[in-house]
Amino acid sequence: MDRLPPEQLKIDALGPRQVDSPLPFSTVSGDGVGNFVRDDERVLHEIVCQGDQHPALELTFQRAGPREKIFFQPDRTTAAIVTCGGLCPGLNNVIRAAYYELRNNYGVSRVLGIRHGYRGLNPACGQQPLELTDRDVEEIHKLGGTILGTSRGSHEPSVMVDFLETAGIDILICVGGDGTQRGARAIVDEVSRRKRPISVVGIPKTIDNDIAFVERSFGFDTAVEKALEHITGAHVEAVGVPYGIGLVKLMGRHAGFIATNASLASGQVDFVLIPEVPICLAGQGGFLERLERCLKTRQHAVVVVAEGAGQELFADQQDACDASGNPRLQDIGLLLKTRIAEHFQSTDLKAKIKYFDPSYHIRSRPANCSDALLSNKLARRAVHAAMAGKTDMLVGLYHNMFVHVPLRLVTSATKRVDPEGEDWMGVLASSAHWMS
Amino acid sequence: MDRLPPEQLKIDALGPRQVDSPLPFSTVSGDGVGNFVRDDERVLHEIVCQGDQHPALELTFQRAGPREKIFFQPDRTTAAIVTCGGLCPGLNNVIRAAYYELRNNYGVSRVLGIRHGYRGLNPACGQQPLELTDRDVEEIHKLGGTILGTSRGSHEPSVMVDFLETAGIDILICVGGDGTQRGARAIVDEVSRRKRPISVVGIPKTIDNDIAFVERSFGFDTAVEKALEHITGAHVEAVGVPYGIGLVKLMGRHAGFIATNASLASGQVDFVLIPEVPICLAGQGGFLERLERCLKTRQHAVVVVAEGAGQELFADQQDACDASGNPRLQDIGLLLKTRIAEHFQSTDLKAKIKYFDPSYHIRSRPANCSDALLSNKLARRAVHAAMAGKTDMLVGLYHNMFVHVPLRLVTSATKRVDPEGEDWMGVLASSAHWMS
Amino acid sequence: MDRLPPEQLKIDALGPRQVDSPLPFSTVSGDGVGNFVRDDERVLHEIVCQGDQHPALELTFQRAGPREKIFFQPDRTTAAIVTCGGLCPGLNNVIRAAYYELRNNYGVSRVLGIRHGYRGLNPACGQQPLELTDRDVEEIHKLGGTILGTSRGSHEPSVMVDFLETAGIDILICVGGDGTQRGARAIVDEVSRRKRPISVVGIPKTIDNDIAFVERSFGFDTAVEKALEHITGAHVEAVGVPYGIGLVKLMGRHAGFIATNASLASGQVDFVLIPEVPICLAGQGGFLERLERCLKTRQHAVVVVAEGAGQELFADQQDACDASGNPRLQDIGLLLKTRIAEHFQSTDLKAKIKYFDPSYHIRSRPANCSDALLSNKLARRAVHAAMAGKTDMLVGLYHNMFVHVPLRLVTSATKRVDPEGEDWMGVLASSAHWMS
Amino acid sequence: MDRLPPEQLKIDALGPRQVDSPLPFSTVSGDGVGNFVRDDERVLHEIVCQGDQHPALELTFQRAGPREKIFFQPDRTTAAIVTCGGLCPGLNNVIRAAYYELRNNYGVSRVLGIRHGYRGLNPACGQQPLELTDRDVEEIHKLGGTILGTSRGSHEPSVMVDFLETAGIDILICVGGDGTQRGARAIVDEVSRRKRPISVVGIPKTIDNDIAFVERSFGFDTAVEKALEHITGAHVEAVGVPYGIGLVKLMGRHAGFIATNASLASGQVDFVLIPEVPICLAGQGGFLERLERCLKTRQHAVVVVAEGAGQELFADQQDACDASGNPRLQDIGLLLKTRIAEHFQSTDLKAKIKYFDPSYHIRSRPANCSDALLSNKLARRAVHAAMAGKTDMLVGLYHNMFVHVPLRLVTSATKRVDPEGEDWMGVLASSAHWMS
Repeated sequence: MDRLPPEQLKIDALGPRQVDSPLPFSTVSGDGVGNFVRDDERVLHEIVCQGDQHPALELTFQRAGPREKIFFQPDRTTAAIVTCGGLCPGLNNVIRAAYYELRNNYGVSRVLGIRHGYRGLNPACGQQPLELTDRDVEEIHKLGGTILGTSRGSHEPSVMVDFLETAGIDILICVGGDGTQRGARAIVDEVSRRKRPISVVGIPKTIDNDIAFVERSFGFDTAVEKALEHITGAHVEAVGVPYGIGLVKLMGRHAGFIATNASLASGQVDFVLIPEVPICLAGQGGFLERLERCLKTRQHAVVVVAEGAGQELFADQQDACDASGNPRLQDIGLLLKTRIAEHFQSTDLKAKIKYFDPSYHIRSRPANCSDALLSNKLARRAVHAAMAGKTDMLVGLYHNMFVHVPLRLVTSATKRVDPEGEDWMGVLASSAHWMS
Repeated sequence: MDRLPPEQLKIDALGPRQVDSPLPFSTVSGDGVGNFVRDDERVLHEIVCQGDQHPALELTFQRAGPREKIFFQPDRTTAAIVTCGGLCPGLNNVIRAAYYELRNNYGVSRVLGIRHGYRGLNPACGQQPLELTDRDVEEIHKLGGTILGTSRGSHEPSVMVDFLETAGIDILICVGGDGTQRGARAIVDEVSRRKRPISVVGIPKTIDNDIAFVERSFGFDTAVEKALEHITGAHVEAVGVPYGIGLVKLMGRHAGFIATNASLASGQVDFVLIPEVPICLAGQGGFLERLERCLKTRQHAVVVVAEGAGQELFADQQDACDASGNPRLQDIGLLLKTRIAEHFQSTDLKAKIKYFDPSYHIRSRPANCSDALLSNKLARRAVHAAMAGKTDMLVGLYHNMFVHVPLRLVTSATKRVDPEGEDWMGVLASSAHWMS
Repeated sequence: MDRLPPEQLKIDALGPRQVDSPLPFSTVSGDGVGNFVRDDERVLHEIVCQGDQHPALELTFQRAGPREKIFFQPDRTTAAIVTCGGLCPGLNNVIRAAYYELRNNYGVSRVLGIRHGYRGLNPACGQQPLELTDRDVEEIHKLGGTILGTSRGSHEPSVMVDFLETAGIDILICVGGDGTQRGARAIVDEVSRRKRPISVVGIPKTIDNDIAFVERSFGFDTAVEKALEHITGAHVEAVGVPYGIGLVKLMGRHAGFIATNASLASGQVDFVLIPEVPICLAGQGGFLERLERCLKTRQHAVVVVAEGAGQELFADQQDACDASGNPRLQDIGLLLKTRIAEHFQSTDLKAKIKYFDPSYHIRSRPANCSDALLSNKLARRAVHAAMAGKTDMLVGLYHNMFVHVPLRLVTSATKRVDPEGEDWMGVLASSAHWMS
Repeated sequence: MDRLPPEQLKIDALGPRQVDSPLPFSTVSGDGVGNFVRDDERVLHEIVCQGDQHPALELTFQRAGPREKIFFQPDRTTAAIVTCGGLCPGLNNVIRAAYYELRNNYGVSRVLGIRHGYRGLNPACGQQPLELTDRDVEEIHKLGGTILGTSRGSHEPSVMVDFLETAGIDILICVGGDGTQRGARAIVDEVSRRKRPISVVGIPKTIDNDIAFVERSFGFDTAVEKALEHITGAHVEAVGVPYGIGLVKLMGRHAGFIATNASLASGQVDFVLIPEVPICLAGQGGFLERLERCLKTRQHAVVVVAEGAGQELFADQQDACDASGNPRLQDIGLLLKTRIAEHFQSTDLKAKIKYFDPSYHIRSRPANCSDALLSNKLARRAVHAAMAGKTDMLVGLYHNMFVHVPLRLVTSATKRVDPEGEDWMGVLASSAHWMS
């Protein structure tokens, strides 16, 4: 990541905080009671030093957590939650935890569930929000998907802010990825223009785990776990027949984190192809030649490919974009399947390709335990931030600590698998990439 | 199923049984010790009567189980196990249980594992059998696939019987489907021609559950369970967006049992398409019109299709066959995906299709508990039959009882979802098929 | 099971059936439409014959399924569902499927959910029934337990029938075990005395799988699957240390089906102790001596014990009964743990005991796929029977077919693991019982 | 944690490193090739600053990873792996990954598996090490436990070092908890005394996650996930009957991390009791009174207790220690069960207690995906450290980075749930603790 101008790390707030938090925390360490977090507690961006050199201090993040003084008077506050973009394990956990923190702990008067993403903020789409109750959310964390529904795409900010004002919404919690947070920023701009005390706080959601300043996003662990299940199946199929090849296409449009992690966890993957590392298919040292060598040595091979890998192989075939503005990807899985089959037709190895495309399977599951925890923690911290009147930010996770990250930062940065980083080196070390 | 000539139900045997079984069973009921099964214990084929009318008696199956007198002298017997065709959860359980029953209970001198299906019986393929040990099989029931490997296709019977004779194999247990059992019959014929005392006993294996006289085949329950997981995901995706359609393609070349059972277990499938029921896509009352109506009523729809369904929609496109002699199927999943998309492009419903193709995922898993049990039971009964010198038969399951079924019967009959049967009615009753 | 007087197999009905079934079945085979079932279709009790001898015909069960003519006019019918006794995986599936069949397919006007077992039929307990809606049941099959709640014990029949009359309930579906079905019989008697046209139909529920004429009860497969998980853990612990003993106590008050099936599925259990087979602990050939021999041979041992096993070892310690009238069991698990520890303190084997008591864990899970299917099938057939005006019966499963069984039969018979039967022999053959 | 004298953070090394690493890393950033880690790359201990104040710099950890120069000549090196103490999910993953890194990537000549913990280093115990092969480890990551076996307790250091010398072992990787690492230190001391170039590197293993400087230990996530399953069951049981109480005892001798995390993930726990927070049972504001209030409000309650909680309630009953030197705990689960039952016998609430004691179930499982990843990463970094000649240290995880931690530090510090920390606050916020 490039250097960050420190002024970008300032968190906007709606105004002075004059309400005492109703939460039973203290401001004193050692009294056995958990503590409020102060705004001047900040987490370093750089934590590796060279010898006795201090890392740069100016790059720090505001630490997340409950504030002693808050902005909103709970019993006069209406909060709303909206879930946008593709499904992700943990959405229902986020909704549930945010609801409970808002309603039971802060005691806000109403929590609304916006239907089907930003569509639900556009009255023209005709979807009224739900006023959530205990019974609505009690068991939803055991189910995949989102009880609120979701959709892609944004809507006219003025229309959405009109709706917020009409519905009396003071806090809007936006759960979603890049596009959603850009939409949240547009709402913030319109809210600011109108000088309304409406807090807009994001909770990052990305099955690909590719949002900057978010070490691990909720749902990612579940997705990797299910992806691993498919890789294990591909390995079973590959070793089951002579010269079997298990080929698995996994999610990962721009970032190969799912492929990287699931392959590393498997320990039985021979080749991993991700968007961050260009693919050379043919020729000496190319993928096909190395695959053939692997097949001759091991009698089988397992190949994992992220859906966004090798797009450079499809010159001049770039399609239009989807409703979220994401360019449509060419199908690298099918290309590989075809090219591998062609390659081995001309050899005496009777390779048999078993193709796995788990697609939505890995994201429509309920959150596993680890993601249930993470969803809970993110949601509660988003509520703390919102109640404190912070806005135009999301809750990030950095160095295993929860921090506030300005939306302008998040939407301008990206996060990718580092081809020189430890995890990718782990993949190479566990696969046939290094096989001579 | 058509009427069966009763003479077809006779089980062939290698010769008189003069060896006392080493198993500690008794021939007396009520002594607290399990009993040997007699050859004249037979299970009725028809068990439903109309009023006080006896069902026909001539159609009965020999009951499986340990015999008091056996044919082979255990300490001079070599048994071999071969696994053929596609993977199926429980293969390793079958290998393990057969091994233990042969080695530990009967005390046969050697148990060989033939490598990669019938290839391993053809020395030209260069794959020596493994002599199995306790350590080889101890933990394999927790793993998917088959430790022996598998392959499709058969080999010259004379070559394979030469191999059996050279290797001193007295018992060959053939685990596989239709093609495998046809291969087993060819071996039996050659063995008979040579008048060799070699027993060939089948264990039916079909992920599609379509082998006649086998109520439930091992691996099927696991496959349905994983298929259900994908259907559940498809439902989550479908309800997650406005007018979402979850489309799931499942295994089932000629028989839609996986689709039928997984859909019924789900209780959230709106349309199920199976090979046994022709598909009418377009026009009034056709699938597309009914899908549109469902979408308008419920705002979402889940469609499950077996891979062998709707092949009549691909007139004149029949491809060649695979190595097992199975005709290659046209891809009904992609056809539906395309036709549904086309259909809704012309309407004002912005339907969103989420396509699931779990393919091998559902068959590369370890056996679930229920299939572990079934695999164990089948394998031990196959060993009992083989030790008793029975041959040219497999172990079937009928009316919840294990029986001996001649291979000639199995390979000439088929098993399909009955479009007037209880399970298919259950599917219709649980779906949108009946929706007016 | 003892001989059954054939007159006991008659199914009672409320009266003549004059209403046409609204279900789209036909009465003709071969028209591609599923068929109504006639009352004279009967399933044989005995299906094994000796040579060419017919089995006795008089013992037959009425086949379950939809009837062409029904007793209740759907749009004037109120049905109620009550769940009683201990939890069992699949209760919610039963509620859901019965609701949908009643409401969507037959079109009855109201479906009530009785709260907390028979308590909910006693106004003094103060629990109003729920009027169930689609939304109430939509996702409940993914959750363990019962949304209606349950309780043990019965209530005064006249009070409960008063309630049925007051609430206008025409059909009562009683989901429960022995005690529940005895309670249902008491209601039937009171209803008959008052000559009211109220149908009382049972759905058998027993985690122990010990209800007569019910080959497999819903929830049992899930319970065995979870029990297997604990046994696998016990094996892992036992082999992890020198002379490790994994000891697992499983449910099974009077019948050891869970212990038997889970041990057989595991294939790694050395000793299985069930209520049906008395335990000899000490002395030559006793359990402790055999355990010691196993430990010396294999360096580890896995022991599975059903909670009801070895009660004869606790002479004169029989406790009172619980609210369902079941006698309280002495803790055989702890006894074994103590006696094993004592035994090895006096030897030079430093045995280490790892004790597993999964208790409620195995019954509080959601139904697995197989139980989801079975629950669905049972519930729909119970609705068919009730709509046809049948009463004083439950839906059984025999020879893999669904049948009607009179409550008087069910409550007078029992089902146990047969110590001479195939499954118990399978356990012995897979364990160290036969080890010399 | 108390202040750390910085000199304690120095990592010992066997001597100068003169061998080129065989791994294909580079020393240049930006060349697309992963990088060797330098010894002067250090990770800050304190990463939260107050405003613009630098945190203290002197407290830093050496960063883990591959070194450009290593100490051991691979083709003359023998490494050994030993697993000690209680089982933990991921042990087999650690063995497998360490083996592959040593054998395939560094190319050491032999990798030995020591049997049954430190017993295997004492020839008097009679257990020869295994020389590990690819086939031994290929599939072990899918199984629970450890293929090497384990044991508690240490042995005479001079005996163990004699064995290391005799067997020609250059590298000893000790996988275990506090006791194991103290044993490792004793070996290091003896090795140092003898001035032998033997590297002893630890991999921290603790199901309780209570080793200092190890943010998350392998197996912990799996344990929490299984614990969650039992809590979910307890909740299902509790809500299933009127006034049901689900009581779950979980692992956690001195630290309540499993109870804390599983309860937070559940979101349905009302009371959590951990060793770090004393229990007041009786009296006003005591646990029993609050439990009663919860039961009256919610009609059910779920209580989770760590096994080490409330030991102060057992004054004067402290038992002896086990073979690892851990004091035996009194059974808080049974005490609570008894005290709760007694409490409600005197009230008109007919509370029903459902007791869950998953014990070893949560630790005998195979590693889940997340722990598979962590095990792999820890093992490879331990190998990097050992090959570089580092010794008397283990691989820690701090701020999401892998670091080297001296054994003297690890064995003198502890890690506990912070009763003022974020996670415990999260538990309180999600439970009935705050309920007025």
